[in-house]
Amino acid sequence: MARIKLLLAYEGTDFSGWQLQPHDRTVQGEVEKGVATILGESVRVHGSGRTDSGVHAMGQVAHFDCGDGRADLPWQRALNAILPKDVRVLDAVEVSKDFHARYSAKSKIYEYTLWHNRAFCLPQRRRFVWGCGTVDFARMEAAAGMLLGEHDFAAFQNVGTPVQSTVRHLDEIAWRKGMTDDETIWRFSASGFLKQMVRNLMGCLVACGQNRITVDQVKSILVSRDRSRAPATAPPQGLSLTEVRYGSGTKV
Amino acid sequence: MARIKLLLAYEGTDFSGWQLQPHDRTVQGEVEKGVATILGESVRVHGSGRTDSGVHAMGQVAHFDCGDGRADLPWQRALNAILPKDVRVLDAVEVSKDFHARYSAKSKIYEYTLWHNRAFCLPQRRRFVWGCGTVDFARMEAAAGMLLGEHDFAAFQNVGTPVQSTVRHLDEIAWRKGMTDDETIWRFSASGFLKQMVRNLMGCLVACGQNRITVDQVKSILVSRDRSRAPATAPPQGLSLTEVRYGSGTKV
Repeated sequence: MARIKLLLAYEGTDFSGWQLQPHDRTVQGEVEKGVATILGESVRVHGSGRTDSGVHAMGQVAHFDCGDGRADLPWQRALNAILPKDVRVLDAVEVSKDFHARYSAKSKIYEYTLWHNRAFCLPQRRRFVWGCGTVDFARMEAAAGMLLGEHDFAAFQNVGTPVQSTVRHLDEIAWRKGMTDDETIWRFSASGFLKQMVRNLMGCLVACGQNRITVDQVKSILVSRDRSRAPATAPPQGLSLTEVRYGSGTKV
Repeated sequence: MARIKLLLAYEGTDFSGWQLQPHDRTVQGEVEKGVATILGESVRVHGSGRTDSGVHAMGQVAHFDCGDGRADLPWQRALNAILPKDVRVLDAVEVSKDFHARYSAKSKIYEYTLWHNRAFCLPQRRRFVWGCGTVDFARMEAAAGMLLGEHDFAAFQNVGTPVQSTVRHLDEIAWRKGMTDDETIWRFSASGFLKQMVRNLMGCLVACGQNRITVDQVKSILVSRDRSRAPATAPPQGLSLTEVRYGSGTKV
């Protein structure tokens, strides 16, 4: 038995998220179909985690197992030849059997793109940004500072599969100029993220940047651990899973 | 009577080009419908020129006429509220009656985006690039130098509406890094362009950059004025109409 690790990019627009669904088109479903076509048998593809419907990825990681004789197949080329154009294999390598796309992950980086021009959203960018209008970056930076470090992020977790702990370590929130003058890209790095945590954090930062809540309120929302007190979830299309980090031996 | 000038951006993917068609969805058709909805009567919207099916625009210019009493309407906001999301009004201003989007244009700038990574095309960029693979930029620059200036560009014109002259002045071909490390953006500036001229020039430059034709052959193709001797037309999705320039008094 050999284990293959895939580095994947996808445009989330036409997918009902990563996770397999009985009736909907999902990234996991398409990749499993592709691998199964090549292997001639059904296969389970394990992702590093789910992404929501409409959320993109530049660096999703997944793995699957195949017979030893199949490990040397040109997996990247073969899969890209049969997968739909909205998902691509950026890399495919054999890894040791103790690698697991989800359980071996040490940290993740997501990026969220904001569009600030209120008069219009450039059509070419509409699938990849949240048109939130003008914001006060200094206020957002101050609010971001409140969120860094190890906290119980229950206030920024949407309802879903129960998790053992809602404590996570948020390593970084940083922004830079985006692809056009009207965009900024917000980078979130953490040991792990709760369900819709990045979108909830982004919604909160933007609310603060728009003077709808104060920086102190961001702190009190965090401490409250009460989702109902936090601002609305930011829409999915601005979000992209940028990178999944593993221990030094298994880094993509 | 008042004349309104529109600055338009659109994603060409789902349009059958700019020009009105009886049964297909076109940008001109959508904008005319939008203006007619606001005015309560049908109207002709004149563009600076056609763009092909699948070609994008960041700076298409168009104009239409309305009664004097309608000139002060908030045209940008009103149109963006009713137009489909893949076309946006970036600006709308009243101009003098002697302004004409097509006949007053002094020059145009198109940009064409190439994708150079052979292993994959990032899904998020697939509607906006031509995945042409690796190219030799020095060869392309040398070929571009052959094409600059005033020439008869008949060899780079596809069949279409007959034009009086196929002589054009090509002011600039310049390239820069694109939105991702795998992209370059090629800028073409000229007094005017023949039908599919930019896509034909781009196809020729890439053919030269891939060693399929020599720099000297580019020159001989130009001189031949024979379309059948030139390499294939580059695909539409890499192309965007970036800017239409007018005399100083009417610049957007």
